[in-house]
Amino acid sequence: MTDRAQPLRHEVELEVRYAETDQMGVVHHANYLVWFELARTALCAQTEYPYSRIETELDVWLMVSGVHASYRGGARYGDRIAISAWIQQLRSRTVHFGYAVRRDSDVLVEGVTEHVWVDRGTKKPRRMPPVLEPVFRRLAGLGG
Amino acid sequence: MTDRAQPLRHEVELEVRYAETDQMGVVHHANYLVWFELARTALCAQTEYPYSRIETELDVWLMVSGVHASYRGGARYGDRIAISAWIQQLRSRTVHFGYAVRRDSDVLVEGVTEHVWVDRGTKKPRRMPPVLEPVFRRLAGLGG
Amino acid sequence: MTDRAQPLRHEVELEVRYAETDQMGVVHHANYLVWFELARTALCAQTEYPYSRIETELDVWLMVSGVHASYRGGARYGDRIAISAWIQQLRSRTVHFGYAVRRDSDVLVEGVTEHVWVDRGTKKPRRMPPVLEPVFRRLAGLGG
Amino acid sequence: MTDRAQPLRHEVELEVRYAETDQMGVVHHANYLVWFELARTALCAQTEYPYSRIETELDVWLMVSGVHASYRGGARYGDRIAISAWIQQLRSRTVHFGYAVRRDSDVLVEGVTEHVWVDRGTKKPRRMPPVLEPVFRRLAGLGG
Repeated sequence: MTDRAQPLRHEVELEVRYAETDQMGVVHHANYLVWFELARTALCAQTEYPYSRIETELDVWLMVSGVHASYRGGARYGDRIAISAWIQQLRSRTVHFGYAVRRDSDVLVEGVTEHVWVDRGTKKPRRMPPVLEPVFRRLAGLGG
Repeated sequence: MTDRAQPLRHEVELEVRYAETDQMGVVHHANYLVWFELARTALCAQTEYPYSRIETELDVWLMVSGVHASYRGGARYGDRIAISAWIQQLRSRTVHFGYAVRRDSDVLVEGVTEHVWVDRGTKKPRRMPPVLEPVFRRLAGLGG
Repeated sequence: MTDRAQPLRHEVELEVRYAETDQMGVVHHANYLVWFELARTALCAQTEYPYSRIETELDVWLMVSGVHASYRGGARYGDRIAISAWIQQLRSRTVHFGYAVRRDSDVLVEGVTEHVWVDRGTKKPRRMPPVLEPVFRRLAGLGG
Repeated sequence: MTDRAQPLRHEVELEVRYAETDQMGVVHHANYLVWFELARTALCAQTEYPYSRIETELDVWLMVSGVHASYRGGARYGDRIAISAWIQQLRSRTVHFGYAVRRDSDVLVEGVTEHVWVDRGTKKPRRMPPVLEPVFRRLAGLGG
């Protein structure tokens, strides 16, 4: 028996858009945060609660409270890119997601985003909705 | 005496952002639509009904229904750019705005955006709210 | 026998990104130009000259000289969207592409982009490189 | 005498663009990185070496190697925002910039970006060009 969490990793693929490049000829660094979001969305979509359903049915937002990214290489227009996302830390009020952006076997960018659950009406931080707990625990590899 | 409309022209200035360039070394063409919007916002802000007030107090949106842009030259990172906007056509249900994007005396881009008034609740097209009619008529140079 | 051109239509699919929405809750209108570009890129990638190869090997750019878009409906976060692109007009110095953006059977946006061939070094307009002529004629359904 | 660095802080102001909001009704978190860049650009423009001159005359890029941002509040459409930037750490091969994004007296976002000097031709990391050393030392408040 082990308590090492084995979070579900989910990967999305995309092709770099021309509009995502800047005059250095590589993807502008802010766009990787958009890609992180894509992979996070796709990870949550593996459950019965895709993110759009969380927002509209549960009246909560999973707001970004922090971002960390470290850039080793630049993606270029037309590159085929894979972005994987997983839950790195799960608490009652916060979730941290981890990310890796790869071109073939090269890791170009790694990142973490930190989130807090917020009530849509009051905009105040709150606990994760109880119905999501088993869902996110499974994503995080923490059992049901 | 003349009834030729003399619409109010309003100009905003900005400096090109690095993130707005693409790998051609010029501003990506989609960003000019964002600049048009900036100038349109600033034009409406000359009245007692800035656009944020229109959305929140009058429960209407001025949705974009059409866009036309013609590109003659490319703005570059760090360029100082002036964008002017004016009302080109005003009807009970639609507004057309015209734009010119200049670097010094060079016109880089010209454009038109077409808009319809939409009810925020029903999302259906509607007439311009009566309270806005004199406001927009003045902007359009059509008298009060 | 007919000489009606039957241009190749190519379709790409994407899922709406959170970052592409604005506070109206729909995709910001400027982003459709980025989607047009995606579909145009994918159309050219059906040939032996994908756009990245055109830029790097032939030292020409296919610059955007005009854009027209007409918006009938708004795509929403998480929507599955199909964008088709085709060559609408092919001349020795210019290319016009047509686009349709669909969600299921609803056409949300239609558009046209106009392009000129530009020499990468001199930045001056020029004719289409001869090696591309049969390629683009086939795309345009004009025979080889 | 003291060796406490007093870096030059420079502030830029902007008004939130509609296109910068997302469907939460606040500025999408990736856009703050673009704002950091604006403030960093304006800080460097206080010297005789604005960033565009660094790129074109010295053939180096100051590439982003890391980003950290922490979000406390969300800027809204039409908000008047001030972004200040300063050099937080200066080494021979790297520069760290710090940022604070404010609406009136509220700090909405704080951040740090880490950069490496890269040769434009070889794309390899390198030391800061000697001509920039006194310039950046002064910006960093480290004397001339």
